[in-house]
Amino acid sequence: MSREAARWRSRRQLRGQYRDKAEQERPQGPSAVRLKPKQVTLPPLPPAHAMIQPMPRLSVPAALALGSAALGAAFATGLFLGRWCPPWRSPREKRLLPPEDNPLWQYLLSRSLREHPALRSLRLLTLEQPKGDSMMTCEQAQLLANLARLIKAKKALDLGTFTGYSALALALALPPAGRVVTCEVNPGPPELGRPLWRQAEEEHKIDLRLKPALETLDELLDAGEAGTFDMAVVDADKENCTAYYERCLQLLRPGGILAVLSVLWRGEVLQPQPRDLETQCVRNLNERILRDARVHISLLPLGDGLTLAFKI
Amino acid sequence: MSREAARWRSRRQLRGQYRDKAEQERPQGPSAVRLKPKQVTLPPLPPAHAMIQPMPRLSVPAALALGSAALGAAFATGLFLGRWCPPWRSPREKRLLPPEDNPLWQYLLSRSLREHPALRSLRLLTLEQPKGDSMMTCEQAQLLANLARLIKAKKALDLGTFTGYSALALALALPPAGRVVTCEVNPGPPELGRPLWRQAEEEHKIDLRLKPALETLDELLDAGEAGTFDMAVVDADKENCTAYYERCLQLLRPGGILAVLSVLWRGEVLQPQPRDLETQCVRNLNERILRDARVHISLLPLGDGLTLAFKI
Repeated sequence: MSREAARWRSRRQLRGQYRDKAEQERPQGPSAVRLKPKQVTLPPLPPAHAMIQPMPRLSVPAALALGSAALGAAFATGLFLGRWCPPWRSPREKRLLPPEDNPLWQYLLSRSLREHPALRSLRLLTLEQPKGDSMMTCEQAQLLANLARLIKAKKALDLGTFTGYSALALALALPPAGRVVTCEVNPGPPELGRPLWRQAEEEHKIDLRLKPALETLDELLDAGEAGTFDMAVVDADKENCTAYYERCLQLLRPGGILAVLSVLWRGEVLQPQPRDLETQCVRNLNERILRDARVHISLLPLGDGLTLAFKI
Repeated sequence: MSREAARWRSRRQLRGQYRDKAEQERPQGPSAVRLKPKQVTLPPLPPAHAMIQPMPRLSVPAALALGSAALGAAFATGLFLGRWCPPWRSPREKRLLPPEDNPLWQYLLSRSLREHPALRSLRLLTLEQPKGDSMMTCEQAQLLANLARLIKAKKALDLGTFTGYSALALALALPPAGRVVTCEVNPGPPELGRPLWRQAEEEHKIDLRLKPALETLDELLDAGEAGTFDMAVVDADKENCTAYYERCLQLLRPGGILAVLSVLWRGEVLQPQPRDLETQCVRNLNERILRDARVHISLLPLGDGLTLAFKI
């Protein structure tokens, strides 16, 4: 027998001795419980179609879910109303263009305005006055000046001087011998503008008439100036706007341009039953111009609405 | 003694008996407590100035108050965000004018549009085409036609024919011997418009060039037509807009009008770092026109921005 085989036999004998000892130490008698390994019963496998069901949802208290849903609904309602309902402004505030601080509108102005320094000073001065925001806007004034240059205007008419911003803009567009007849009933504001007319060296072109515009227009017609004006800008009181329109059209030459400002009257023209006389007059004038075969027309969304009527 | 008096006496005696009985039944001894009528102490009257205080507030459970406050805050937040935050549109949608269905914009159009029947048919036909909404708008076309009439234009240039809406609008504004040179690379759309050019009896004035606009412009310059055009309308691809602008300016006579469309490029000009070439080209052109001393300019909020450059 080799040494190896002898070693294996002795190990088997050792294991046998240990086993016998364990049997002797086990408690004997009826109280002895023979320990069996516990039998684990696995639950039955679910059917195949049930095994692909989603995980159970997150469970939250009902009060929390209801509260969150109510908060969400209130937020969404507010968002919807805020987006789609008109703002609580008076209907007088209605306008087509976005507010002054709109970035795209600012871009448009910054890429197009070329305002004479005196005009700029006069605009800033005018905006400080009461009702200063009713003045002609700078892009309107620039367009009218461009049109005056385009038709080589020499004589222009300006109803509603205020501080003379539009009169100065027109004067700057006229040749040295040009003349702007401008009408105003309130003597205060034009005196504010006069230093700036002088500064721009255009004072001699501006012929200020401090009396009701209708009187001035009739004087000009009586003086035989019908058909001699190249341009007319109507930005005076609205009660007489149709009379102004008719007289200005007589004073214009064929090919002259008549501009009427504030023809949307801050959105009031949309009123189904206008109660005030001004709104009614503006609406009537718009209807009249639309049907007037003596002019070609364009209505531009500048300021509070600018009608350009080109006399045929 | 009357019967009545006897009845009263007997009642008094009865009450006396009951009282004696109650005294006997009352527990006697030191543990007996003599019940006294409870003394009600009224609170002191408040001072006179406190008596006009308002009624005490309605008392609600704290949970209800907190819940209502949270709902109100959520609603107000939604309303605020809905009103003041920009809508979730792509920045490409930015425009100055209100949407087409705005009542005031509809009023403006209804009081100013005088569209030739053939022009109207062509506009409706064009809007059915793919990218039909990129056409010149009707109020732009009417303004350009009015300006063409104003300067008694005889020769006009139209870059970007599409279906020929702008070409037809210009042709209608020119005298019988007038001519509109119109450039397009895509031969399909102009053929859609041709029957309407014919219907309006203006087909003979429209000179369609089916090749890149730059080639046509160079041909015209080579043919010695510089300074002979009265009007030019640039509504073609934006990559070459500066080249178009420069060549058109050469082709225009002094006093001619150059109109460039879509100069706001749907608000993309506002991008701080434009990535696409088109936006960069439009921005560069706007800067160039602003500083160009050869023209007077106006930038109008019509369509997607309309620059009018009046050649000096």
